[in-house]
Amino acid sequence: MTTSSLKAKRYIKSRADKTGKAPGSLIRIGGKSTIPVTINLIDFNETFFEEKPLNSIKDGLNFKENKKTVSWIDVEGVSDSSIIEAVGEFFDSNYLILEDMLNTDQRPKIEFHDGYIFMVLKMLSYNENTSQIDVEQVSIIFGSHYVISLQEGKEGDVFDPVRDRIRKGTPIRKRTTDYLAYCLVDVIIDNYFIILEKIADKMENIEARLLNNPTSEVLQDIYELKREVIFLRKTIWPMRELLAKFERSDSELICNTTHEYIRDAYDHIIQIIDNEETFRDMITGMMDLYLSMVNNKMNEVMKLLSLTGSIFIPLTFIAGVYGMNFHYMPELEWHYGYHSVWFLMISIAVLMITIFKKKKWL
Amino acid sequence: MTTSSLKAKRYIKSRADKTGKAPGSLIRIGGKSTIPVTINLIDFNETFFEEKPLNSIKDGLNFKENKKTVSWIDVEGVSDSSIIEAVGEFFDSNYLILEDMLNTDQRPKIEFHDGYIFMVLKMLSYNENTSQIDVEQVSIIFGSHYVISLQEGKEGDVFDPVRDRIRKGTPIRKRTTDYLAYCLVDVIIDNYFIILEKIADKMENIEARLLNNPTSEVLQDIYELKREVIFLRKTIWPMRELLAKFERSDSELICNTTHEYIRDAYDHIIQIIDNEETFRDMITGMMDLYLSMVNNKMNEVMKLLSLTGSIFIPLTFIAGVYGMNFHYMPELEWHYGYHSVWFLMISIAVLMITIFKKKKWL
Amino acid sequence: MTTSSLKAKRYIKSRADKTGKAPGSLIRIGGKSTIPVTINLIDFNETFFEEKPLNSIKDGLNFKENKKTVSWIDVEGVSDSSIIEAVGEFFDSNYLILEDMLNTDQRPKIEFHDGYIFMVLKMLSYNENTSQIDVEQVSIIFGSHYVISLQEGKEGDVFDPVRDRIRKGTPIRKRTTDYLAYCLVDVIIDNYFIILEKIADKMENIEARLLNNPTSEVLQDIYELKREVIFLRKTIWPMRELLAKFERSDSELICNTTHEYIRDAYDHIIQIIDNEETFRDMITGMMDLYLSMVNNKMNEVMKLLSLTGSIFIPLTFIAGVYGMNFHYMPELEWHYGYHSVWFLMISIAVLMITIFKKKKWL
Amino acid sequence: MTTSSLKAKRYIKSRADKTGKAPGSLIRIGGKSTIPVTINLIDFNETFFEEKPLNSIKDGLNFKENKKTVSWIDVEGVSDSSIIEAVGEFFDSNYLILEDMLNTDQRPKIEFHDGYIFMVLKMLSYNENTSQIDVEQVSIIFGSHYVISLQEGKEGDVFDPVRDRIRKGTPIRKRTTDYLAYCLVDVIIDNYFIILEKIADKMENIEARLLNNPTSEVLQDIYELKREVIFLRKTIWPMRELLAKFERSDSELICNTTHEYIRDAYDHIIQIIDNEETFRDMITGMMDLYLSMVNNKMNEVMKLLSLTGSIFIPLTFIAGVYGMNFHYMPELEWHYGYHSVWFLMISIAVLMITIFKKKKWL
Amino acid sequence: MTTSSLKAKRYIKSRADKTGKAPGSLIRIGGKSTIPVTINLIDFNETFFEEKPLNSIKDGLNFKENKKTVSWIDVEGVSDSSIIEAVGEFFDSNYLILEDMLNTDQRPKIEFHDGYIFMVLKMLSYNENTSQIDVEQVSIIFGSHYVISLQEGKEGDVFDPVRDRIRKGTPIRKRTTDYLAYCLVDVIIDNYFIILEKIADKMENIEARLLNNPTSEVLQDIYELKREVIFLRKTIWPMRELLAKFERSDSELICNTTHEYIRDAYDHIIQIIDNEETFRDMITGMMDLYLSMVNNKMNEVMKLLSLTGSIFIPLTFIAGVYGMNFHYMPELEWHYGYHSVWFLMISIAVLMITIFKKKKWL
Repeated sequence: MTTSSLKAKRYIKSRADKTGKAPGSLIRIGGKSTIPVTINLIDFNETFFEEKPLNSIKDGLNFKENKKTVSWIDVEGVSDSSIIEAVGEFFDSNYLILEDMLNTDQRPKIEFHDGYIFMVLKMLSYNENTSQIDVEQVSIIFGSHYVISLQEGKEGDVFDPVRDRIRKGTPIRKRTTDYLAYCLVDVIIDNYFIILEKIADKMENIEARLLNNPTSEVLQDIYELKREVIFLRKTIWPMRELLAKFERSDSELICNTTHEYIRDAYDHIIQIIDNEETFRDMITGMMDLYLSMVNNKMNEVMKLLSLTGSIFIPLTFIAGVYGMNFHYMPELEWHYGYHSVWFLMISIAVLMITIFKKKKWL
Repeated sequence: MTTSSLKAKRYIKSRADKTGKAPGSLIRIGGKSTIPVTINLIDFNETFFEEKPLNSIKDGLNFKENKKTVSWIDVEGVSDSSIIEAVGEFFDSNYLILEDMLNTDQRPKIEFHDGYIFMVLKMLSYNENTSQIDVEQVSIIFGSHYVISLQEGKEGDVFDPVRDRIRKGTPIRKRTTDYLAYCLVDVIIDNYFIILEKIADKMENIEARLLNNPTSEVLQDIYELKREVIFLRKTIWPMRELLAKFERSDSELICNTTHEYIRDAYDHIIQIIDNEETFRDMITGMMDLYLSMVNNKMNEVMKLLSLTGSIFIPLTFIAGVYGMNFHYMPELEWHYGYHSVWFLMISIAVLMITIFKKKKWL
Repeated sequence: MTTSSLKAKRYIKSRADKTGKAPGSLIRIGGKSTIPVTINLIDFNETFFEEKPLNSIKDGLNFKENKKTVSWIDVEGVSDSSIIEAVGEFFDSNYLILEDMLNTDQRPKIEFHDGYIFMVLKMLSYNENTSQIDVEQVSIIFGSHYVISLQEGKEGDVFDPVRDRIRKGTPIRKRTTDYLAYCLVDVIIDNYFIILEKIADKMENIEARLLNNPTSEVLQDIYELKREVIFLRKTIWPMRELLAKFERSDSELICNTTHEYIRDAYDHIIQIIDNEETFRDMITGMMDLYLSMVNNKMNEVMKLLSLTGSIFIPLTFIAGVYGMNFHYMPELEWHYGYHSVWFLMISIAVLMITIFKKKKWL
Repeated sequence: MTTSSLKAKRYIKSRADKTGKAPGSLIRIGGKSTIPVTINLIDFNETFFEEKPLNSIKDGLNFKENKKTVSWIDVEGVSDSSIIEAVGEFFDSNYLILEDMLNTDQRPKIEFHDGYIFMVLKMLSYNENTSQIDVEQVSIIFGSHYVISLQEGKEGDVFDPVRDRIRKGTPIRKRTTDYLAYCLVDVIIDNYFIILEKIADKMENIEARLLNNPTSEVLQDIYELKREVIFLRKTIWPMRELLAKFERSDSELICNTTHEYIRDAYDHIIQIIDNEETFRDMITGMMDLYLSMVNNKMNEVMKLLSLTGSIFIPLTFIAGVYGMNFHYMPELEWHYGYHSVWFLMISIAVLMITIFKKKKWL
Repeated sequence: MTTSSLKAKRYIKSRADKTGKAPGSLIRIGGKSTIPVTINLIDFNETFFEEKPLNSIKDGLNFKENKKTVSWIDVEGVSDSSIIEAVGEFFDSNYLILEDMLNTDQRPKIEFHDGYIFMVLKMLSYNENTSQIDVEQVSIIFGSHYVISLQEGKEGDVFDPVRDRIRKGTPIRKRTTDYLAYCLVDVIIDNYFIILEKIADKMENIEARLLNNPTSEVLQDIYELKREVIFLRKTIWPMRELLAKFERSDSELICNTTHEYIRDAYDHIIQIIDNEETFRDMITGMMDLYLSMVNNKMNEVMKLLSLTGSIFIPLTFIAGVYGMNFHYMPELEWHYGYHSVWFLMISIAVLMITIFKKKKWL
């Protein structure tokens, strides 16, 4: 129940501290984070590769002048607002972007600015313990020679495969920042398929249990699942819009080849949405099935009572009649009275059973 | 029930007095207001700041000539129609706007006129006593050098934080009227998040009670909540349109930077709508859960009766048979007759319980 | 039930006589009308005012040459097809318009022709006796110097307030035919608010009765109400389209100021539609509430039987056992046998009640 | 049930023979037709009129050169594919059109070709025996001087009124082929109103029976009706699109006046769709009403049992107690024991009835 | 149940191996295929025809220079990734296309590239054993002189009719690659009609069983069917989009005549979607009917118990009363006491039956 109680609040984080503040105030929404901040720089081009941790984000910000490599600064953890401010100085104090980065309650979106593109994305992971989808916000800013990614750092890092590909010198080394940004988005979307698989697994598990024995635990699990799918839906629908804008964009930061890749990612998100919608339909179907099965089971039990009752209540009445103590009850004197009553009662029972059978109640 | 009875009427206020009147007639819809009118002027620019209460709105209307400061006239209370008329004179008697200001039953909207922009907004507050969302209409008119805001004044004033920011000399002092108007809209939208939080709180509370014991009070609370969400929805959907028009507007009154801020507010309203839609889905889910739980509980009770009845009704019949008073009933004479009957009855009971267990009814 | 039986037919009037006729044939759809026709002319401009009844419509048709006043010919009653033909001659025999005027089964619409604009509207009134919304078709044609309005004349005349305003010399006297036409449309729309109020009243009344005692009469009333709202919806939705076209029209017959007024009327119809949609949601909610309440009530009754039965059926069995007449039943001989059985029975009863309490069934 | 079994197949006719054939293969879909083919030619202009049956369609095809009259060739019955081929030769073997004509399973549509316009329409008729809407496909091709209509010929001919109008010399004689084609479409649409009326009749009949006694036959009739409305919907929705395209078309074959008439037909189809949607809502409402009424009726019966049971089961228990045969049962000896028991039992009964009344269960 | 368990996973295939890989990595999604690869070349123009199997795809790739014939390379089976790579070399290593070909989990789509058009389609077949729709992905690439089709090869080959038409020299021999590609798409769409027929058959079968005896097997079959229709819907909706893009395309690879054919295919897919939507409505109707029928049946059984119980429980009570053993019970002494009781009991029974009849419960 505690798990359950957490759900409604999941959608809306407290902004009480923030209401009425000037827009762009750097107050973190979504609770204080205690995750230490780590900053990592990867600098590369086709022939050059350098990777080093940074103590302060300022150390990496000299890429502004450096025109020959792609610099990827990956910041994990958002607890230290000085980092955000350092980023802010670099971007001429566009406080709305800084606010969006800090506010981990943001809707996925893309914004095209002069000289750089800003995206807010949601990374999902399935928490086996709470049977809940955990969500982490990722912000990506990229200009002509740099990509800055900012993760909340709550969950493990999904960007490792991208780092490996850079280290190993795959085609990614030959391309520009737009392709690197696309790769980061792509790896996040690929993760959604894993969430879908988890949900599919869970659906099959629940369905098997449902068909075996429709207990009320199964029902609650179906509701939990439904909520997770509603939650998922809320996260992935804005991604469609984001990718559509990304693809249609005529920003000079994005070259033609990358447009093709983004269209591919767009196709993926459409496919994910398709599946999610199908899952919703299927969960609704499972609920209906649950209700029908419970209903059928109850009907069987009730039918038993009804038929037992309908047969024995009249018979009991007959027995009751001959249990009366009237002085003058002629049937009681008859030698075959008892046998006659038995015969009567059995006849009635047989007759009723025949009728029930004919009506397909038995 | 009285609370409940007020609901349907909440959506539609009596216009009987108004029907057939000339459009633009200054007849207040929404009941007489007895709140005294207070008028407050704040005059500021980057270096200058003045704040004073006004006795009459005419005293503040000389800002038309004053070209060097931003004048914000905040009127609270709409009971005195002479004030409205004073405003009207200033705006060349555009009676439709005056009518919209007086009619507190208005749909949120934005209108672009020559030299000024007119907006009708809804300020929401959650009334803990009635568990109902209270609504107050706020009209905002702004031109190149003035902003007039008109509140009903029923609830407390949400514009205080904006006033504080002006007093403290934050960037707001450097900007023009469009930014001030945006700030007023923004503070109203920020309030919607608080409403959402209240609703989320209430949902969690109801859900906890529901899972504990699904009484019919819980059901009525769910319905109340559903209605509040329907009511909320009715208020916030038009805000989306309003902000979209505001953002896309090419009015020269709105400068580029402000456009960016408005887009940010638009993002917020989309997020609010998203959450509201999710809440609707979740409330529907809670109702289904309630019904299933009540149903399950009832089924359990009925099953008890069915099984008790199915076992004991036949046994009672047997007891009844041997309670009959026929003179000739051979079994009664047998020495072990009584024990045999017990044996028979226990056998039947055991058999039936075994069957029930096999069918998973027990 | 007769009232109810009339409902389905309300949506579709017999056209059997008309099928296959040439388009534009002047055959009245919607039943013969026996209402006598009255024609009324109001001729006015800023300084001039004349009002007189006309015997024949031809008397009023000389306004074609009269260029200095606005002539409003109001025809009430459509039983006399010669009037329609007279109108027809004037409009160069555009038979489709005449057909639309006669056919009181028309969907609200607006058509822009050379030199005149033609509208079909629906005037609604709430019939307290049948609890039904009555509908009357109003056609309006206006050119540069005339407005012709054609009412069915079944219900009272809603145009009186407009006439009063003309007589009293309000701004209407200074304006052109487009403003007069707008005023007629506006007064019809204002009437819709009254219908909404009636429905709101009825909803509150039904809701109060529902919460008090959910009888099946309440259910039928909810269904009646639902149908009225469906009927209302069918009428007001096309009005939205009509007003949108009216507002966006670039016809030279409509001057700029009037456009603003039409936009105001458009806002009103949006608000009416909003309310109607909210009412639909609320009625659905009331049905659900009804079903839940009936269900809860039934469950309580059934629970009583189940618990009574579950307790007493076993006890009755025990009593039955000791009512058997076997010769050898040792318990019957015991001195405290009777007391022991009472003790046994009371123990069982107490035990079961305890269990029921623990399971929250009592 | 056989009727019912025919329903699903009604939507999809066997194409097994056709799969993989070259597009444009003249294989009839929809079953072999055995209706003999009749061909009828009407040749007319304002002053000239000729009507004659044709043995072969080739006899009528010389209208291609004939530039002074409108030639209407009406073909009834599609069993003879040589006719179709003759038509094909005329239209330069556009096999896709021929295929569409033969395939009576087509969706209503309009196609604009060089020199001619091709339409597929659905003519509906209500079959009283099967309570089902029968459908017949009608194809219309018209060029500048000819109109060819092709009916399946299953049902009676709805074009008779058009023929009469041509014979009688109404305005139709003065106009061109586009007006004749419009008239044929219009007469088909007029027929839809008759179908709507039949459905309205049936709805009222079912509703009366429903309110009188909600048997399960009524339920099946509601389902039948619902399906007919779904079927109707499927047929008329594409007509909307067809007429919209027809009206917006800039083909030189369609003159301005005819455009106005087509817009009128478009208004009609919108009205038909409106009504059909309303009917769907009302049928859904009838189902809900049915379920509520059955439920209420059942509840009443169950309540009777519950209350009877709750009162008499405890009383029977008391009677059972004093029917026990213990040797030592002091109450049995009391002189007023019997009266006391009666007093006790009556008291219990009165008490319970009082409680039930207070709870509004009686 | 195993069948059922396979369902949820059907929608989403494991991509765990793929996540984080570079876009365009040739890793097959959808499980390892063990189907051997066969490659078949058909080379033809109006006068020339050659058909031969190929050992390696490279043997067929010289068509790039060959400008005078249409070369159709049909690859069945996708297990051998070297084939895919060979195709890749030919298309300048556009890895995204290769990935789409290998990934059999793709959504139907069309992509227009320089010099060639790429399509992904879904071929459906109905598996009688599992009562499930099996799906196989087909990719088609065509340029000015070649068509490459790639099938998974799980099911039989649906392209045989097209091959036959080429061999027999039908018009297909005179046309270009776009027409051949259209023919392949058309034959796949034609197959959808067969699926619809199968579903219609199944619906009729289920409906017959449902009306005969609504067992819970019927319910499960309805759910199975519903899922198949959801699955079908998911496959055919994107086809609509695909064909719309195909038809509207201005690629020079598609000649005018072919555009007309594609529009015809588009009409077919619209018709298929129409039918599928109708089926969904009908299945929902069947579920409602099932629930009503089960409910009605249960109600009948319950009514029997209720009425039997309501009649006999009071009678049994009376019998119980006169079975009591009080010493002083005056009625027992009466000579006609027994007859009086019988008379009383029969009167009560007759009275109750009369009431039940009047209330239409019997």
